[in-house]
Amino acid sequence: MNVLITGANRGLGLEFVKQLVTHDTQIFATCRVPSQANQLKQVQEQYPERVSIINLDVTDNTSISRSYKLIRTKTKNLDLLINNAGIAIEDGGLGTFDVSTMKSILNVNTIAPLLIIQQYIDLLKRGKQPKIVNISSGLGSLARANGCHMSIYSLSKAALNMGTIHLAHELKYDGIVVIALTPGWVKTDMGGENADITPQESIAGMLRVIDSLSLSDSGSYYDHTGEIVPW
Amino acid sequence: MNVLITGANRGLGLEFVKQLVTHDTQIFATCRVPSQANQLKQVQEQYPERVSIINLDVTDNTSISRSYKLIRTKTKNLDLLINNAGIAIEDGGLGTFDVSTMKSILNVNTIAPLLIIQQYIDLLKRGKQPKIVNISSGLGSLARANGCHMSIYSLSKAALNMGTIHLAHELKYDGIVVIALTPGWVKTDMGGENADITPQESIAGMLRVIDSLSLSDSGSYYDHTGEIVPW
Repeated sequence: MNVLITGANRGLGLEFVKQLVTHDTQIFATCRVPSQANQLKQVQEQYPERVSIINLDVTDNTSISRSYKLIRTKTKNLDLLINNAGIAIEDGGLGTFDVSTMKSILNVNTIAPLLIIQQYIDLLKRGKQPKIVNISSGLGSLARANGCHMSIYSLSKAALNMGTIHLAHELKYDGIVVIALTPGWVKTDMGGENADITPQESIAGMLRVIDSLSLSDSGSYYDHTGEIVPW
Repeated sequence: MNVLITGANRGLGLEFVKQLVTHDTQIFATCRVPSQANQLKQVQEQYPERVSIINLDVTDNTSISRSYKLIRTKTKNLDLLINNAGIAIEDGGLGTFDVSTMKSILNVNTIAPLLIIQQYIDLLKRGKQPKIVNISSGLGSLARANGCHMSIYSLSKAALNMGTIHLAHELKYDGIVVIALTPGWVKTDMGGENADITPQESIAGMLRVIDSLSLSDSGSYYDHTGEIVPW
């Protein structure tokens, strides 16, 4: 299985690599600053045949196309794309909204995954039962929203969920599954110490969900246990 | 009643002004290029005491704050803010996504309404049963989405809906109602000739909905007939 994952240097992205690498996979582990991705490099040194570390700044279209040209020399097909890179910044609601922060959050969390899918779609079309997984958040659920200090993050994930639905419709006839997947509340730098589950549990759950997907699941919004999250 | 409306030069915004002006209202009708807002100027000439035409480019934070300083000299309170300005651009799905178009749509449809609310919130807090109406779209409903050629527009409105929920929670204790409201499919430049209803019908319906709102409706997503739209 050929997998491309963004934001693979730390947190959930790194844990995806760690768990996927124990299977028969070829992983294109992308991140913005490979030279600083020390933990990822350790995994790569342990599995040099399976892990390629690729430079990719998801907010830079030139960087997206450069990564594509490089990966294109290594493979002709992708079976799984995990749009994992994201930023979570707390806000204090009205009075604290800052234009450039709002734009950054939407660029990384909403626009970038769509651009990456657009760039890599031909490799995915040649994949085996190809899947696109957009890492969303429980905070992206409008039905469950009840006010929080992450309103811009939250709306960026709702927007990503909508993009997921549209692409699922568009790609159904190509046999490509597209879903939004929430990791749960995870003990990472982003989730903090009080979170519910470890990165190991979250990723193990998400990989089970991804593994079980069929085309009829496309366009859905799942959590790491496989439960449907209401929009 | 003091009303601020964005994108008042044409389409639904202009029709809001035309219908509101027949009531006892003071309307701050904003648009990006007042010098070209000929139809709005005609309304203003007919009701010079009720309509002020104000320059406001919703994508420019300096312009937002300049409009505020001007309006602040004319009134100390706002009772209704209608975030109507928006752009709808069709896309052809994957292969046609263009970074700068995506950013423009999100800037106008998602970020700008939040910045305008942030700027004007003190005037709204002094309003009488104040209401904030974010003009959304049926295409912003994730529950109803089934693929369309307006995917970026659609996700920008889903994101606006999420912002609406968060602000509704934040402003409930100030007694401010915040809703997302869809105009229906309207015969405008945006909606085209085949649409269901006229601008007159849409605006009359939306004004009835706005008029009937109480604080318990805050955070909801209505259509122009007063029906709840599923998220």
